[in-house]
Amino acid sequence: MSLDKNWFTEEAAGAGCALSLKIVNKIHEEQTPYQLLEIYQTETFGNLMTLDGLVMLTDRDNFIYHEMMAHPALFSHPDPKKVLIIGGGDCGSLLEVLKHSSVTHADQVELDERVTRVSERFFPDLCKSNNDPRAHLHFTDGIKWIEECAPETYDVIIIDSTDPVGPAEGLFTSEFYHNCLQALGPQGVIVAQSESPLIHAHIITKMHKSLHDAGFVDTATLQFAQCSYPSGWWSATMGCKQGSLSDFRAQDAAGKRFATRYYNADIHQGALAQPEFLRNALDKNH
Amino acid sequence: MSLDKNWFTEEAAGAGCALSLKIVNKIHEEQTPYQLLEIYQTETFGNLMTLDGLVMLTDRDNFIYHEMMAHPALFSHPDPKKVLIIGGGDCGSLLEVLKHSSVTHADQVELDERVTRVSERFFPDLCKSNNDPRAHLHFTDGIKWIEECAPETYDVIIIDSTDPVGPAEGLFTSEFYHNCLQALGPQGVIVAQSESPLIHAHIITKMHKSLHDAGFVDTATLQFAQCSYPSGWWSATMGCKQGSLSDFRAQDAAGKRFATRYYNADIHQGALAQPEFLRNALDKNH
Repeated sequence: MSLDKNWFTEEAAGAGCALSLKIVNKIHEEQTPYQLLEIYQTETFGNLMTLDGLVMLTDRDNFIYHEMMAHPALFSHPDPKKVLIIGGGDCGSLLEVLKHSSVTHADQVELDERVTRVSERFFPDLCKSNNDPRAHLHFTDGIKWIEECAPETYDVIIIDSTDPVGPAEGLFTSEFYHNCLQALGPQGVIVAQSESPLIHAHIITKMHKSLHDAGFVDTATLQFAQCSYPSGWWSATMGCKQGSLSDFRAQDAAGKRFATRYYNADIHQGALAQPEFLRNALDKNH
Repeated sequence: MSLDKNWFTEEAAGAGCALSLKIVNKIHEEQTPYQLLEIYQTETFGNLMTLDGLVMLTDRDNFIYHEMMAHPALFSHPDPKKVLIIGGGDCGSLLEVLKHSSVTHADQVELDERVTRVSERFFPDLCKSNNDPRAHLHFTDGIKWIEECAPETYDVIIIDSTDPVGPAEGLFTSEFYHNCLQALGPQGVIVAQSESPLIHAHIITKMHKSLHDAGFVDTATLQFAQCSYPSGWWSATMGCKQGSLSDFRAQDAAGKRFATRYYNADIHQGALAQPEFLRNALDKNH
């Protein structure tokens, strides 16, 4: 079959596959100082946000991504109080972070203020904690923020970025991770979105190496399904300054006092399992 | 963007999403007695087989599906010797089953012989165990096969079927599962492909109920990414006649003497983790 003009389509760059979502209407379009931001009403996935034609999120499936960007990292730290989110302008990761009662302060550093303002309008459910007194929204360059950050400021750093091309490229370097290491307290944990295990395994293995080179003592990749991202399979890669990422607060996660739709303690443990091909590639990496 | 005629596109029925794969050529097409069978050479996913326009498999990502259809069920049985596969005409599940040295006899019952013959030609890697003396290929109706099967014939039954519409509909009923229960030995295990957790959670919860109604004492859904199936997220649901599916032979799986690309003992354990929304739906189910 071929799709008519009532479909939005994203071709995964160079991957020979494409995802399409059936559209009711385009309901917003603007050229921000950084990118083309569009919002579509879809037939079955709720609202859809794209940046320069690439899917950022849909109402229907963003819960998996945002829960997996926040909860495993926070339950891997013994007592996360101060959290930094770089990127994350749709505020979905921030919403999940603020579900943790231990958190006293969350800085979100997003380059493009328009992403957040448009999310407040079209994804209000994701932005309902933006006025939480613990939430501090900053619209500036995350790479510079980290360079200028006082040592040991944060317990957890979440890199909720776009793909490692263009402005986000600097968020995947060993130098950037080293600055994050400095900005983290002694028990600090970093997590970064790390693309598709099927299409981008080379990016994942390189991230592990860069995190180790930067001084993180343990690294681990979480895998999860994410329908609206290329290949439907996505990942987040964590690093910690001491201890082991397999020793997370499983009891606290099992007894969490907030609602989730995807995450739970078993899912956390399960997402840490490495597919055989990735395990082999990571073994060769060392 | 819109896709030109060099793409194969499958719209997930009623789900408002579609997957496309970039095509080099259509290399085979035939109307079998049962369905339209097409083979495409894709740009990056190797060969692609479709039946009536729906993706059955690609060279690139079928390993996840086939390994997850075979190994968790076989490592959930203490000593699987006799295995039945219903459907599975591409022979990928059979290939994985025969990697287990305990298996002495595998019956594969596929309705459409042409699926297997065409697979032998265009997916030779999946068919390389078809001449194994333990492999017995039958081309007939799986529902009838199970009805006429002597009690306690098999240790593991694998339902590697198409979607629960048309000919495969009868493979998702409580009556069919009850016949499978009869055909299984006292420690028998069944596994059936069970669609997408994102799109078809209602099918998964119904399958658990039907398996329990049929007499299986424990049920569990395995989740895994599968790029070329609708939503990129797929599942297989297991049932056992005694004991618990969480007590699989983890040590044997960790020490397996055959190669896999996705499956290992950690992946098995991890795939058993139920997303929170599915756990809640299954709890309500009981």
